[in-house]
Amino acid sequence: MSESLYVIKIGGNVIDNPDACSRFLAVFAKLPGMKILVHGGGKVATQIAARLQIETQMVDGRRITDKPMLDVVTMVYGGLVNKNLVAALQSLGCNAIGLTGADGGIIRSAKRPVKTIDYGFVGDIEEVNDNQIASILNSNLIPVIAPLTYSNEGSLLNTNADTMASAVAVAMAGSFDVKLIYCFEKKGVLSDPDNDEAVISSLIPATYAEYKASGVINKGMIPKLDNAFLALEKGVASVIICHADDLGEAVFGAAGTVIYNA
Amino acid sequence: MSESLYVIKIGGNVIDNPDACSRFLAVFAKLPGMKILVHGGGKVATQIAARLQIETQMVDGRRITDKPMLDVVTMVYGGLVNKNLVAALQSLGCNAIGLTGADGGIIRSAKRPVKTIDYGFVGDIEEVNDNQIASILNSNLIPVIAPLTYSNEGSLLNTNADTMASAVAVAMAGSFDVKLIYCFEKKGVLSDPDNDEAVISSLIPATYAEYKASGVINKGMIPKLDNAFLALEKGVASVIICHADDLGEAVFGAAGTVIYNA
Repeated sequence: MSESLYVIKIGGNVIDNPDACSRFLAVFAKLPGMKILVHGGGKVATQIAARLQIETQMVDGRRITDKPMLDVVTMVYGGLVNKNLVAALQSLGCNAIGLTGADGGIIRSAKRPVKTIDYGFVGDIEEVNDNQIASILNSNLIPVIAPLTYSNEGSLLNTNADTMASAVAVAMAGSFDVKLIYCFEKKGVLSDPDNDEAVISSLIPATYAEYKASGVINKGMIPKLDNAFLALEKGVASVIICHADDLGEAVFGAAGTVIYNA
Repeated sequence: MSESLYVIKIGGNVIDNPDACSRFLAVFAKLPGMKILVHGGGKVATQIAARLQIETQMVDGRRITDKPMLDVVTMVYGGLVNKNLVAALQSLGCNAIGLTGADGGIIRSAKRPVKTIDYGFVGDIEEVNDNQIASILNSNLIPVIAPLTYSNEGSLLNTNADTMASAVAVAMAGSFDVKLIYCFEKKGVLSDPDNDEAVISSLIPATYAEYKASGVINKGMIPKLDNAFLALEKGVASVIICHADDLGEAVFGAAGTVIYNA
């Protein structure tokens, strides 16, 4: 049986809340075995951009990334957020190493072609270097991955963290027994968006289709769940969506929503 | 005989000049064998700080680093500068990995005690984890190190890049044949500060003492040279100070100033 590997994604809302982030890191640091953390950006990039008089433009929750904004996200995601997570984890005895997709060439992407919208310096993932990531894991390092990739032309590219987590999980599934866990500010996928306790404990493609058809599962959750089911199809052993505070229980299937391929 | 390892430091003046930086990276990328790049910060941190309305205070060329300034150098050194160097090197076929001292816990420091001047979040190096660096090198990765370290308390700390290069070179000298090369905007140590061609081809402690006594070697160069001689005493095989454009020749001792321990 393959060695177990957790790929854990932490959302921007948790990054933005220092107490929530500390609680999460304390649990993450203690999680035994091999693990990878993928983090979102949070609101700091927008705040720093505003202070630098750089306008933030979002389309469907995605950031339009012109060159000045690319510099901001490189500074904030690759520098400020990533390195502070690493320093905090090191102080918790967790041998973290902060990486973008460019570092070790682990995640290469291509600049998104312009169709109706020019997203600018945004990358669509082309290749995950699973051997390089495995080699980093085998050096007793815990990768902490920022939502940035790079192109063959040597440019950094802003990249969706959910998609990066899923792509990394799929790539590693060839040689590890991968659990992909999305941690965010809700207790899981909710059957009632107004009731934070109404957690759907498990989802299979058929029930997902029903929830989508009835409108119970909302717009923002759909790309995350589509990513989740795709990851399962491509060999990831299990996917869990949970509150960042519940990571310790969620790894045992005791919290959050577990996504199955029935 | 031990395997050869280059520890190459590139100064902020080169980082600030895109053409000079590209020329340097093209040569660095082609340099055969194991190598580590340590980079300075350059003026971008000061420019970004100014745009964020954060005042830059320098004492003897050292940056006073309060918390807002620590965030700026973390963004600029650890994010913007480091990740762009990595992406550029990757596009040149060089498997770079960008690191601060916190990443993999490779360089731990302690916050400088306040004596007459409070430097703020500035670190004095306490420990270089040579085994972890060797393990990264053995994973076919080329470390690109930003001038930031971390404390046991989980804080990032601003750290002098010259000192970091020297400390890394010394730590690696236990298991590698280390050449330490300081690349900057002059052709070497000059015997006449007004003549850029007046390069002192080699320096030993006795001649260094003479040049210092006569005032030929000036204030800014003294910490660099003190670092160089200390590195030699502690086992580094050779130290070279050269122009960033001359790296290709300097590795063969055909450019710059070679520092010997006679």
